[in-house]
Amino acid sequence: MSSSSKASASTSTKPLQVEEEEPVLRVYNSLTRSKDVFKTRKPKHIDWYNCGPTVYDSSHMGHARNYLTQDIIRRILRDYFGYNVNFVMNITDIDDKIILRAREGYLLDQTKSTNSTLTSDMIKDTKLAFSKFLNSKLIKSLPSTIPEISSIENDLEIFDIILNKDKSDSTFAEAAKSKEEKWTLYLASLLKASTAIKKAESLMNGSGSTQNDVNDLVDGTSDVLGPYYGETLGHTIEDPISISRKLALYWESQFFQDMEKLNILPPNIKPRVSEYVKEIVEFVDKIIKNGFAYEAEGSVWFDVEKFDGAQGDGFRHDYAKLQPSSKGNKKLIDEGEGALTGSKGKRQAADFALWKAKSKPGEPAWPSPWGDGRPGWHIECSVMASAILGKGMDIHSGGVDLMFPHHDNELAQSEAYHGCQQWVNYFLHTGHLHIEGLKMSKSLKNFITIEEELSRNTARRLRLAFMLQTWNQKLDYSRGLIADTKAKEETFDNFFANVNARLAQAAPTADGLHQNGSAEEAITNDLFNAQRDFHAALCDSFNTPAAIQTLLDLIAKTNIYFSAKGRDANLAVVTNIAEWITRMLRMFGLGEGAPAKNGIGWGIAVVGGEAAQNGQDVTSQIEPWARTISSFRDTVRKLAMDKSISSEELSRRILTLSDKFRDEDAVNLGLQLDDGQGSDGGALWKLVDSKTLIEQREEKKRIASEKLAKKQANAKAAEEKKLAQLEKGKIPPLEMFKPPYITPDNLYTDWDSQGLPLKDSEGKDVSKSTIKRLVKEQKVQEKLHDAYLQWKKEQEGK
Amino acid sequence: MSSSSKASASTSTKPLQVEEEEPVLRVYNSLTRSKDVFKTRKPKHIDWYNCGPTVYDSSHMGHARNYLTQDIIRRILRDYFGYNVNFVMNITDIDDKIILRAREGYLLDQTKSTNSTLTSDMIKDTKLAFSKFLNSKLIKSLPSTIPEISSIENDLEIFDIILNKDKSDSTFAEAAKSKEEKWTLYLASLLKASTAIKKAESLMNGSGSTQNDVNDLVDGTSDVLGPYYGETLGHTIEDPISISRKLALYWESQFFQDMEKLNILPPNIKPRVSEYVKEIVEFVDKIIKNGFAYEAEGSVWFDVEKFDGAQGDGFRHDYAKLQPSSKGNKKLIDEGEGALTGSKGKRQAADFALWKAKSKPGEPAWPSPWGDGRPGWHIECSVMASAILGKGMDIHSGGVDLMFPHHDNELAQSEAYHGCQQWVNYFLHTGHLHIEGLKMSKSLKNFITIEEELSRNTARRLRLAFMLQTWNQKLDYSRGLIADTKAKEETFDNFFANVNARLAQAAPTADGLHQNGSAEEAITNDLFNAQRDFHAALCDSFNTPAAIQTLLDLIAKTNIYFSAKGRDANLAVVTNIAEWITRMLRMFGLGEGAPAKNGIGWGIAVVGGEAAQNGQDVTSQIEPWARTISSFRDTVRKLAMDKSISSEELSRRILTLSDKFRDEDAVNLGLQLDDGQGSDGGALWKLVDSKTLIEQREEKKRIASEKLAKKQANAKAAEEKKLAQLEKGKIPPLEMFKPPYITPDNLYTDWDSQGLPLKDSEGKDVSKSTIKRLVKEQKVQEKLHDAYLQWKKEQEGK
Repeated sequence: MSSSSKASASTSTKPLQVEEEEPVLRVYNSLTRSKDVFKTRKPKHIDWYNCGPTVYDSSHMGHARNYLTQDIIRRILRDYFGYNVNFVMNITDIDDKIILRAREGYLLDQTKSTNSTLTSDMIKDTKLAFSKFLNSKLIKSLPSTIPEISSIENDLEIFDIILNKDKSDSTFAEAAKSKEEKWTLYLASLLKASTAIKKAESLMNGSGSTQNDVNDLVDGTSDVLGPYYGETLGHTIEDPISISRKLALYWESQFFQDMEKLNILPPNIKPRVSEYVKEIVEFVDKIIKNGFAYEAEGSVWFDVEKFDGAQGDGFRHDYAKLQPSSKGNKKLIDEGEGALTGSKGKRQAADFALWKAKSKPGEPAWPSPWGDGRPGWHIECSVMASAILGKGMDIHSGGVDLMFPHHDNELAQSEAYHGCQQWVNYFLHTGHLHIEGLKMSKSLKNFITIEEELSRNTARRLRLAFMLQTWNQKLDYSRGLIADTKAKEETFDNFFANVNARLAQAAPTADGLHQNGSAEEAITNDLFNAQRDFHAALCDSFNTPAAIQTLLDLIAKTNIYFSAKGRDANLAVVTNIAEWITRMLRMFGLGEGAPAKNGIGWGIAVVGGEAAQNGQDVTSQIEPWARTISSFRDTVRKLAMDKSISSEELSRRILTLSDKFRDEDAVNLGLQLDDGQGSDGGALWKLVDSKTLIEQREEKKRIASEKLAKKQANAKAAEEKKLAQLEKGKIPPLEMFKPPYITPDNLYTDWDSQGLPLKDSEGKDVSKSTIKRLVKEQKVQEKLHDAYLQWKKEQEGK
Repeated sequence: MSSSSKASASTSTKPLQVEEEEPVLRVYNSLTRSKDVFKTRKPKHIDWYNCGPTVYDSSHMGHARNYLTQDIIRRILRDYFGYNVNFVMNITDIDDKIILRAREGYLLDQTKSTNSTLTSDMIKDTKLAFSKFLNSKLIKSLPSTIPEISSIENDLEIFDIILNKDKSDSTFAEAAKSKEEKWTLYLASLLKASTAIKKAESLMNGSGSTQNDVNDLVDGTSDVLGPYYGETLGHTIEDPISISRKLALYWESQFFQDMEKLNILPPNIKPRVSEYVKEIVEFVDKIIKNGFAYEAEGSVWFDVEKFDGAQGDGFRHDYAKLQPSSKGNKKLIDEGEGALTGSKGKRQAADFALWKAKSKPGEPAWPSPWGDGRPGWHIECSVMASAILGKGMDIHSGGVDLMFPHHDNELAQSEAYHGCQQWVNYFLHTGHLHIEGLKMSKSLKNFITIEEELSRNTARRLRLAFMLQTWNQKLDYSRGLIADTKAKEETFDNFFANVNARLAQAAPTADGLHQNGSAEEAITNDLFNAQRDFHAALCDSFNTPAAIQTLLDLIAKTNIYFSAKGRDANLAVVTNIAEWITRMLRMFGLGEGAPAKNGIGWGIAVVGGEAAQNGQDVTSQIEPWARTISSFRDTVRKLAMDKSISSEELSRRILTLSDKFRDEDAVNLGLQLDDGQGSDGGALWKLVDSKTLIEQREEKKRIASEKLAKKQANAKAAEEKKLAQLEKGKIPPLEMFKPPYITPDNLYTDWDSQGLPLKDSEGKDVSKSTIKRLVKEQKVQEKLHDAYLQWKKEQEGK
């Protein structure tokens, strides 16, 4: 073959065939109840709406399970699969629970502030509240009629009977519990209240009462008095919106603090319902116009029957796609409607409120075409998600308990509004959390807040523990799980410590890393296989337990390699493994602090929720300095620019400011300033631990205040002594042994010219020794009297 | 429709259609000369072999372009596209250049250590070496015969003639350069040597010599003496392998230090040729057995003609797939063979050495079936890559200058060995680097080592500069590029500083972030579009210039948003943008130090190659803050305590101090204070690079001092003008046309009462036109004189 013909006939060069096809990401989708291939609507972009918290109480482990799990999935999608995630999470700050909690709190506070002592009206109120609670909650949920009760008039006594039965009669208690899970909670509330009422009654009958006693009664009976006041006095509240807002704001802030402690990425957008009322009204109006809702007595209801099966543009609407079996489940529907919501004008039991008419004065309300009212719960999410994400989204997520009716209603509303067949591409529901095999509940006393749990276990441990179960399964948070998680954490810790120690102590000329033997080839292949399995696990609907197990198996193999090779272990090969494991753990959000320079290790997690900052993040350490310095300068500058201040005043204020700076701002920075001790006559500055400084400052304050108190006590004692002596000095020495200054009046019956007694009560001569003593006393009194006269003269001269 | 029929007919729920298909990653492949869809052989796994350095000298900017570019691509594949990259990079430590350099260095050192004073033998040696070098290099490359030379015996004199001609005769110099680019290098070496020899000769004739003089002679003549000794004394070297090894080890270590300074990830495996000689011998042997190589006189040659077009198992072998046009290019082939390699036994010009027989004593050699010898250059990479990666790989990369013959020979050998059609799926060649439009070369004096460049510019700046050109294009490293890069860096710096400042000083209750207005929706869409464009750019064969431009455009839009919104800017929206830009910059390896806690900012880069360790030593970074804050407070306090200062004075001084603090102390800390821009009306503070701030301050000062100087110059000129006019004004107008004020004395001979001349020197009447002119002059003088008299009066009054 000639070379010219060769050139012209050259085979075109194409990449080789692939050996093994890449797995694709599949995600368990509640809408199809199967693992669907994951495809986004726009390239590498995920629009994601997650149902956020209703902010009226502390976040608990159920929240942790939900939000932590979503954070893990979000990080996997973002940092492993490389998606740009637009994560929207709402804050529900308009809700019946918030309204109730806020107004009860407000009314209870008002009771405290308007009563400085206990009154019989208060006792009466608490007893009424007690009775109402007992009848509506506890007796209503009694397992069987208790004959004794009907014959007794006093509710406190009835309660004592029930309480005794509950304690003594286990069958009764069991029956009670099985009938109503909240039984023990009701019992506890009533017990607390009855104790507080009895105490208040005894105080009323006794020595009187103080503000503290009022507070004790209100706090002790709050569980029964709150609802009672809510119902009877709710209408008196003038600005219910701002009261609800204040409560919601507080718990929203607490919620995000908990999330930060759990190392959960903040949402990209966090809409509040209260900022979307206008959009909600418009949304509801359009659903009515589209024929899927009706107004009745100021409320608007979604017409479920009309919607379900209705023909759209080339498709059919379906109701309850997520949980069709719950269609018409009255208990679930009622729970979804909220405690303050009636059903006036509702046509069918399955219909649900889009807009709730204001039913009573004192309820927060916004204007609408149907009169004043507030949004229904489900509509809030439909509106915020539509306002931010448009006609649809890639992912909608929430806890599995929201599936029906909340999410099914959301879907129905949104599809009715947009006139579309399917509003959400993938619906992800995170599984339940149980504690030691049981549902978490206050009545079971296994109710754990996030804050509590973080005082026992690190945020990393929680996250890792949750990752040991797939995200959409029920997770049993048990001692066993914690122990297992701890063991796995230790495996990672030990592995990183081992690799880092070997690297740090390796010979400086790292020879022998340049040719892999069969053991090195084997362990390198183990790494590649682990990477393949890890990828496959995450593609399998984010199978985190399998992914973590892959990492642990690789560590086990590496440890075997270490044992076999001893000092001759090829650190370059092991570095590749450790570096990859580190990156994957950090990808999951399991890393603490900044990555080490050599890229190996997941940092040190510290109990208490505060991540070990490893000292690497200088900016965050310098920022407080910048803030403080700038603010001090601002204040001084402002003072200097204020022309109304006199020179003395300016000096005085600046000096006060300097002292405050030394004692407060500097202390908080960990800067100790010793005035006059610097080499130039200024302050000597020292960088110390701010905690120590703060402690020292508090100690100083304590000592100073003790000293002051002592001084004041001494001064008071001295003053009292002086006053007592002046009082004593009023008596003229010549008269001191005569009535009215001497008792009994007839102790002596005759005196000499010096006022010294001669005869006693019985007419006998006063003894010489007595006279001698009395002369001495008289001398002392002369001095006291002179002092008194002097003081009196001074007083008159004034 | 009854509800039961609805349920049974329920439409199955499937994810929606995607709106826009994802772009796929395409990579420019030298094998197809087109952008191929990128597919790996195994899921998400990339086997990558990169041609590493031949370690015998400092790494220069050409290396930086190559390795930095590959690091950028590697990070994009790993941290953006999520591949597990197995990056293999060899170290060529057996090579003719290393052998030559090592043995010359060894022999020169030996000369120094065995001579403590200059000897006539040494002078003789250096002159011989000089003569040999002159004749073999410079005279050989002379543009034309110089007649004068043949008649002169002394080489030093000949050299002087050439040197003079080169300097004086530009045609000669140009011709010389065009003939042989290394001309100026040869001239420089000879000049240095002739100077050293002349100095040594004069010392020998004079006062005697010391060890230093020996060293000076050896160092001064090393360019000519080294090669001379290498050739004449090379055979005396007993352990040539260890000498080469030592040199290679030194430069290998230097190389990796440079790479670390450039923030280049270390390879996962770094095989050294010296640890693979056994495998090389086996590999060569199999190629012979496969019929594509032949042994001749102890060397083994690859049979190019036999290979090219040979039939494989269902395919055809092709030679020079990468650069078919260079097939048979003798110059390139010879360069590929190395300076020490002959062609004994080679059958065809296109054949190349797989194994080089040891030709002389003192050459490093290893045993083989064909006798002692060493590997050819090209075979080394084929063997190491095959030993580690097996029968093929996903990516092979190297500088574009390695395309032929190195990579084409590698492909031929490996395909001949494995009996496969295509050994490499994607061949990536990084483009050339030019300096100010010219090829970098020592002769052009634009040869820059990495170390040098890092003393002027940060590693980040280099990386960013390289990213502003696509990886496979020629890059012109010019002042313009650096300036452009600097400007872009500042854009990023300012953006992060601005966002962080606003975040740190935001009002604590971050209300109003919960509902996006139209401006927020627009800027959020800008973010999403930027993310889409960024992704498309990276999918387009890692188009980094487009990707960076996308980030900069987004910043420009965000800055416009900031300007429009002022204090009301929604920081939640801006945080999403800043956080994404940060992550993408860090993904490229452009980040310094650990990420900030809030995830915003790319850290501070410091010239000198040492990355800012961001707080590894927090104390030393905080100390300046403590010092500054304490001192400012001291000064303010002292002023406030000084009772002699008036209120106005105190205010004035404090304000001056505040300004000085802002312009000097804060600047030195890297704290920018924008008075009145803070949310509370105080200063908006920003943490920025102190160097930038200092530069800005100096520029301001410069402008101010120029202004002042100009003003002073103007004032001086005005003063001088005034004085000149006063001087002129001394002359009384009536006398001005008379002596002594008029010259010559006899210009006029008669005057009227107004002092106007009547007769000229010859007694003639002065012309009317002259009189007219003089009257005008007199009027002007009257004014000047009045001004003078006025001034005089004022002076006397003083």
